[in-house]
Amino acid sequence: MTVSPLARPFPALPPVAGVELRIARARYKTWDRCDLTFATLAEGTTVAGVLTQSRCPSPEVEWCRKALVLGNARALVVNAGNSNAFTGDRGRQAVEAIAARTAAHLGCQPSDVFAASTGVIGVPLPIDKAEAGLDAAFTAEACDWQDAAETIGTTDTYPKGASTTAIVDGHTVTLVGIIKGSGMIAPDMATMLGFVFTDAAVDPAFLQTALTAANTPSFSCITVDGDASTSDTVLAFATGKAGNAMLVDADSAGADAFAAALADLCRQLALLVVRDGEGATKLIEITVEGAESDRSAHRIAMSIANSPLVKTAIAGEDANWGRVVMAVGKAGEPAERDRLAIRFGTTQVARDGLAVSGYDEAPVAAHLKGDEVEIGVDLGLGDGRATVWTCDLTHGYISINADYRS
Amino acid sequence: MTVSPLARPFPALPPVAGVELRIARARYKTWDRCDLTFATLAEGTTVAGVLTQSRCPSPEVEWCRKALVLGNARALVVNAGNSNAFTGDRGRQAVEAIAARTAAHLGCQPSDVFAASTGVIGVPLPIDKAEAGLDAAFTAEACDWQDAAETIGTTDTYPKGASTTAIVDGHTVTLVGIIKGSGMIAPDMATMLGFVFTDAAVDPAFLQTALTAANTPSFSCITVDGDASTSDTVLAFATGKAGNAMLVDADSAGADAFAAALADLCRQLALLVVRDGEGATKLIEITVEGAESDRSAHRIAMSIANSPLVKTAIAGEDANWGRVVMAVGKAGEPAERDRLAIRFGTTQVARDGLAVSGYDEAPVAAHLKGDEVEIGVDLGLGDGRATVWTCDLTHGYISINADYRS
Repeated sequence: MTVSPLARPFPALPPVAGVELRIARARYKTWDRCDLTFATLAEGTTVAGVLTQSRCPSPEVEWCRKALVLGNARALVVNAGNSNAFTGDRGRQAVEAIAARTAAHLGCQPSDVFAASTGVIGVPLPIDKAEAGLDAAFTAEACDWQDAAETIGTTDTYPKGASTTAIVDGHTVTLVGIIKGSGMIAPDMATMLGFVFTDAAVDPAFLQTALTAANTPSFSCITVDGDASTSDTVLAFATGKAGNAMLVDADSAGADAFAAALADLCRQLALLVVRDGEGATKLIEITVEGAESDRSAHRIAMSIANSPLVKTAIAGEDANWGRVVMAVGKAGEPAERDRLAIRFGTTQVARDGLAVSGYDEAPVAAHLKGDEVEIGVDLGLGDGRATVWTCDLTHGYISINADYRS
Repeated sequence: MTVSPLARPFPALPPVAGVELRIARARYKTWDRCDLTFATLAEGTTVAGVLTQSRCPSPEVEWCRKALVLGNARALVVNAGNSNAFTGDRGRQAVEAIAARTAAHLGCQPSDVFAASTGVIGVPLPIDKAEAGLDAAFTAEACDWQDAAETIGTTDTYPKGASTTAIVDGHTVTLVGIIKGSGMIAPDMATMLGFVFTDAAVDPAFLQTALTAANTPSFSCITVDGDASTSDTVLAFATGKAGNAMLVDADSAGADAFAAALADLCRQLALLVVRDGEGATKLIEITVEGAESDRSAHRIAMSIANSPLVKTAIAGEDANWGRVVMAVGKAGEPAERDRLAIRFGTTQVARDGLAVSGYDEAPVAAHLKGDEVEIGVDLGLGDGRATVWTCDLTHGYISINADYRS
């Protein structure tokens, strides 16, 4: 698989106290690579999550939704190569078997075990392979973040991870995240599978509040193809090893710093996913201002970001701002044609409902030749504002998805 | 331009009394082809229309919207190669100039002149070229339906027309339609430009009622790329030459027959557009049954029809029904995973939330190799039902749209 031209090198990521990673070969597909990731979490680890809104969620998503209510985590198991979605009772039994096997190994409750799977829909995850993979992982050497980030991937062309720190209650806390995703990435959802680990001590309710807030301007603002997965999952685990007084709500010392760090990390991870969008050759940042509300701005930005005509124009390095007008017009949100302004990069190309007379095409052409493209829209109606990210739509997307066999 | 593999030959279309067609070279682009279509309509012709819901409509759309209130038509002018959308005052002036020139020629009111333009967005339609083109059309020989259907096209790969008849009040009335459209074709809108002509005598209010009703299961049920144009227009003209007593409402003699014929014609025209979807190699019919309402069924069907992952799977002749599950799940409509059933052609591939054990893959593979693919979804919740049509997403779509220059 060709690495995305927008790929970023895997960064040096620090350990997070209370988190141990291991990988193994469950051989969910006929491949010779690790495809099972196992994270052991220290006693006392709290957890929060953002899960797909799909009406057809995977049994892993349903399992996590229930377990999140309790707020405690001791392990995370991630399977790559089979999403186990739409598999009925056999799929549910596979998740239960994974939780039971892990609970017996660690001496914890099955509800302390979180699971996520990614890959083809409709094939029950084979329980024998999952159990053998888990047994291998239990006895494996600990691995590093990059190993785990590679093991959770499927059509990803590069491993994705990021980290940040915050000062909380006088203690430096570390946050590390890994993520996978390349296609079936869509708005208003968590991206496919993302996992954040921190050594901060955080009450699960506040961890959930902070994660939900971090999700809104990050994972909910990216789209590759407008297609939302049955398995989208972002989980945040807090081991409590950093020594800070437990963050219990927004008034706790350091709560703001922690929430800001978590938001920063989620944004980094979300952009890494767009950079690995199937077939992507350009990262597109779309900012809509002057809308009646932030929500309206977000919807218009997503209408632009999901327009195949806008995305193919950018692929062709064509400053076809008429397609941006089209996408604004079809969004179903308040807009007035004759107040609309559009820019590519820093060059205003349309204003007051028509082209800017004699605008300089040279900087626009140069901007579109780069691998990061900015589109700005000002509706001239109010203060609503949103920024979203997508990638271009190329022959690569077609090749990947017209050939991928179920 | 390669003709779509799904193209249909242009049918023999009868004349419609009271309609005369002429074409001319306005040279809106640097091409040597006719690009201005002029239809003269007999005195007493009534008109109805369905126009884009875009918040950024072309001045032609705004002109038609106002003129439709009066309900009378004497001429139709269609420009190809320039949509005149998003061009401010100069665009409005161009439409006014076309109406004024035509009204002077025919001795009618400018509001009796209907106009539509298609092509690039953002370039004012040159008034001098439009006027010269009109003058040439006024003196040209009358042409046939195929000439007109070819002249209104842009990225279309074949001319599209259809006809039908109905018995109204003891008189045979004829309905003929021509249409153009290939990309920027989307749900809940009239398709780009479609024109229906009939010799029936129809009151404009009832003509509007019948056209609106015909639009719902036809133009509102097709999508090529989910992108709605700034210029979508369907106009229906009734010259009243057939000799029937005026159809004034649904209780008029023959009103049902006329409405049914109009609906049939609109459906024929809509499918011709999907068959010319940019890059299309397969026509896909998607039927959703068992939804909570027809509206809900329509939304779920459109979620499937607009999913790039479903469309690329069909392009690859891949029975990847998991992507259909995904598209149902993301539609935001009531659905229960464990009641969901999916078929390709006549073969049930999933039922009760999982794959049908050991279903015969041979008829599915054979069905997908054909150029007409049927996907059936049963939600098992209620009586709601909808059928929509789309095409597959191929390298051809990317090639056409990443290379088309603004």
